[in-house]
Amino acid sequence: MELHGQNILGASRSGLGKTVLRAVNPATGEKLEPRFHEATPDEIDEALTLAAEAFRSNRRLSAEKRAQLLDVIAGHIEAIGDQLVGRVCAETALPEGRVKGERQRTISQLRMFAELVREGSWVDARIDRALPGRQPVAKPDLRRMLTGLGPVAVFGASNFPLAFSVAGGDTASALAAGCPVVVKAHPAHPGTSELVGMAIQQAVAQCAFHPGTFSLLHSQDPEISIALVTHPATCAVGFTGSYRAGRAIFDAASSRSKPIPVYAEMGSVNPVFLLPGALSERLVQISEGLVQSVSLGVGQFCTNPGLVFGVRSSLLDRFIDETKHRVEQVPCGTMLTPGIKAAYQKGLARLQAAERVKLTASSPLDRPGGVNQAGSAFLLTDDNGFLANPWLAEEVFGPCSLLVACASDKRMEEIASSLEGNLTATIHGTEQDLSNHRDLIHVLEEKVGRLIFNGFPTGVEVCPAMHHGGPFPATTDPKFTSVGTAAIYRFARPVCYQNFPQSALPEELQDHNPRRIWRQIDGQLRREG
Amino acid sequence: MELHGQNILGASRSGLGKTVLRAVNPATGEKLEPRFHEATPDEIDEALTLAAEAFRSNRRLSAEKRAQLLDVIAGHIEAIGDQLVGRVCAETALPEGRVKGERQRTISQLRMFAELVREGSWVDARIDRALPGRQPVAKPDLRRMLTGLGPVAVFGASNFPLAFSVAGGDTASALAAGCPVVVKAHPAHPGTSELVGMAIQQAVAQCAFHPGTFSLLHSQDPEISIALVTHPATCAVGFTGSYRAGRAIFDAASSRSKPIPVYAEMGSVNPVFLLPGALSERLVQISEGLVQSVSLGVGQFCTNPGLVFGVRSSLLDRFIDETKHRVEQVPCGTMLTPGIKAAYQKGLARLQAAERVKLTASSPLDRPGGVNQAGSAFLLTDDNGFLANPWLAEEVFGPCSLLVACASDKRMEEIASSLEGNLTATIHGTEQDLSNHRDLIHVLEEKVGRLIFNGFPTGVEVCPAMHHGGPFPATTDPKFTSVGTAAIYRFARPVCYQNFPQSALPEELQDHNPRRIWRQIDGQLRREG
Repeated sequence: MELHGQNILGASRSGLGKTVLRAVNPATGEKLEPRFHEATPDEIDEALTLAAEAFRSNRRLSAEKRAQLLDVIAGHIEAIGDQLVGRVCAETALPEGRVKGERQRTISQLRMFAELVREGSWVDARIDRALPGRQPVAKPDLRRMLTGLGPVAVFGASNFPLAFSVAGGDTASALAAGCPVVVKAHPAHPGTSELVGMAIQQAVAQCAFHPGTFSLLHSQDPEISIALVTHPATCAVGFTGSYRAGRAIFDAASSRSKPIPVYAEMGSVNPVFLLPGALSERLVQISEGLVQSVSLGVGQFCTNPGLVFGVRSSLLDRFIDETKHRVEQVPCGTMLTPGIKAAYQKGLARLQAAERVKLTASSPLDRPGGVNQAGSAFLLTDDNGFLANPWLAEEVFGPCSLLVACASDKRMEEIASSLEGNLTATIHGTEQDLSNHRDLIHVLEEKVGRLIFNGFPTGVEVCPAMHHGGPFPATTDPKFTSVGTAAIYRFARPVCYQNFPQSALPEELQDHNPRRIWRQIDGQLRREG
Repeated sequence: MELHGQNILGASRSGLGKTVLRAVNPATGEKLEPRFHEATPDEIDEALTLAAEAFRSNRRLSAEKRAQLLDVIAGHIEAIGDQLVGRVCAETALPEGRVKGERQRTISQLRMFAELVREGSWVDARIDRALPGRQPVAKPDLRRMLTGLGPVAVFGASNFPLAFSVAGGDTASALAAGCPVVVKAHPAHPGTSELVGMAIQQAVAQCAFHPGTFSLLHSQDPEISIALVTHPATCAVGFTGSYRAGRAIFDAASSRSKPIPVYAEMGSVNPVFLLPGALSERLVQISEGLVQSVSLGVGQFCTNPGLVFGVRSSLLDRFIDETKHRVEQVPCGTMLTPGIKAAYQKGLARLQAAERVKLTASSPLDRPGGVNQAGSAFLLTDDNGFLANPWLAEEVFGPCSLLVACASDKRMEEIASSLEGNLTATIHGTEQDLSNHRDLIHVLEEKVGRLIFNGFPTGVEVCPAMHHGGPFPATTDPKFTSVGTAAIYRFARPVCYQNFPQSALPEELQDHNPRRIWRQIDGQLRREG
């Protein structure tokens, strides 16, 4: 496939904008072909107008058709083959193995949502049958199920050019729910975005969905992002990225004359708590795992563990020594963009300059001749230093971690109480440790979406029980996940039918249950007709 | 019980505020005793600080204990007996029969949530078991369930002094989810609020919950409402009332440094569509039902049908005549407050003054000697008149309805497309009508939360399949209902446990399923251990 550098508007292409952007190979600084036309306000309007038409038109299509669309998209992405892998590597400097793994994950996610929609029970169908003779008034027949929310705007993330981008979890779950999608491609990987976008465009045509089911826009202008969010036809937003951009999008969406939900996943410091039993049993393994988790993918994961807490002890000192030693051996890596590299350097410098914070270990920060190179860093402070500088709890995106040596368990729990919302918290301990620190667990349950025991937060499993979310500022809505089957609930809402005849009801709510889905009938879960 | 006129702060009372408010009997204008102290910012802070403590402390209590609390509250409310009914009647002028019915509904709702929590499957437990041998990486054990969001601020509604007030659906569902509640009493029924508030306070003590589980504040100062919404410990808001107040609360909540969700139900015009088959079969019954639904409770329901659409025909003319005749016979009624009465009068005057709108019928607007009396009104316009004045689609709270005679089906569908979000839409038709108007149904599915066939929107059943919600401006979040068991999901969020030992997991997620709840195990619904 040849890249055309235009926006995808339903079945067409459009490059009205005079401003262009180009991808840059972060490992070499080389500019890549072609030039991509940034979307104009008219093109945004066109994409959303098409999406609104598609939303209404696609209502006629069955769940099976929606499942097919997702499967066909997966197949088309697979079929791009090496060209896709090569382009992702060129635009992101991510290693080929990682890119292939991420492609597999993206395809599997699409197929997982196809399966979810095909099985059908996700619609949470509820039927309360009529009681015509009830006193003092008859009870009507009520039937409720979930249906799509409307056109969804999706913002691609820089750090997952496939799995959280054009055909990532946001797009897959929105399409699964019956929502058309308009994607704003991340400007760091426009070529990757176009390749995947063309795969979706072809699938939409092949499956005879309304062409407005999918559009793809390019831009690096924040005003264009806001125009997308505030377009009257946009009904919800999926976003993964920085706090600053996520908050701006949330604010724009909330202050619309008709506010819309924003599911923004904005990052997290993912605190790790080292309890004494674990240190005495597995000190070396924990240190090894931590350094691996911190430096994985040059630290460019939202689940990167940026804070580590332990109670001062000779064991903790040994842990620090062990970790220091390991961090010094971590090789440098190429970051995704010059902007991310610069922000990491700035964040590290700010940490180092803080009172009572000490840089204990680091891999060399630059490799001769390399661009966008970054090394790992390991910093130390104590509970007083940490509580005196609340901003130390803010995320520094990159391979660094700050260990806070606390004077006591109580002090560590106080610090946990002071933390803001996070995607995850990790506890290393024995079962005895857990039972001795029950209050700490209760505090963390209030603060995070996922609690990990004796593991590491990086590596987010895609499955029904995953919750990749958490209280603000980790996300803008702690009730929803962006990973796993439950991600579909972000883009659906209930519609209730009162006293409707069978012939006018959706299949999911008809008496004989033609789709054989699980339903609540008079409050009881059943699968029979 | 003697009314004390103070705020309830956990186990205590407090009346630090110098400003007082008094209830007024809307039927007589008489001021009622006692004076109620309006809450001060310090008292708000105290209530929320207690609530945050209670949230953490109550985590130790079982689901069975939460169910008990709800049952005991229901019993205490019932036990207040005639004093409660008398006070509600005095503060609202609602007829005794209606008040007793609403009390029963309030008690039943509390017991319904007790049953939901006791049964336990609402937590949407999901377990994905580990696959230690999976390649390329092991799959961890992941277990997820819903848990309370944190302290909830509830704003009592004027028009349901029991069922949407201190112990109404918002409070019941929040307590069921494990969230402490701080209620801001509606200033029109402070005595009712205090009586119910004392019943809850007693129940909290009797069931040995943390006293901060419930507080009740009085105020009619909008700044105090905003202070409650913006307090750092407040995690969610339940509100039923006007668009203006709801939007102000939503804006305050969204612009917090840590935004919180607001579930505001703000009213609706609840359009009714008259299709030709229905008019030819049941013209008189539909007219009778419509007038009854419009004038019920002096039109003071959020599901009051304020707009009626039909295609011009001799049948529609007959329907208009029939309805006109009935409206003229509807007696006046007492509205809830002078403010509501004044707003109704103003709204009616504005409608009447609009070009192409004609007042066709009304009951006399004032009865000699009565205060806050209002009569029903029936107005007419055509499709051009309606589309020329988009504000005609805004709610006028009270017993009036505007019929729009459309030139064609297509024109009626166009108008439906132009409507904003509503709680309900009603269709009167035959099965043949429905199949002839499938596009209209699809349009309405995008616009409303509940579609009623051959019935009327007033009368909201409390059950699992009810969806009392709808797209903005009907509510601020169309994904949630404020009535029925699903209301609990407003106040809960998932927490996921990765590789946790059995002993540290909540009962709901332990292998042997001690609570025998429905769970998704590796994606399959099961009730076994």
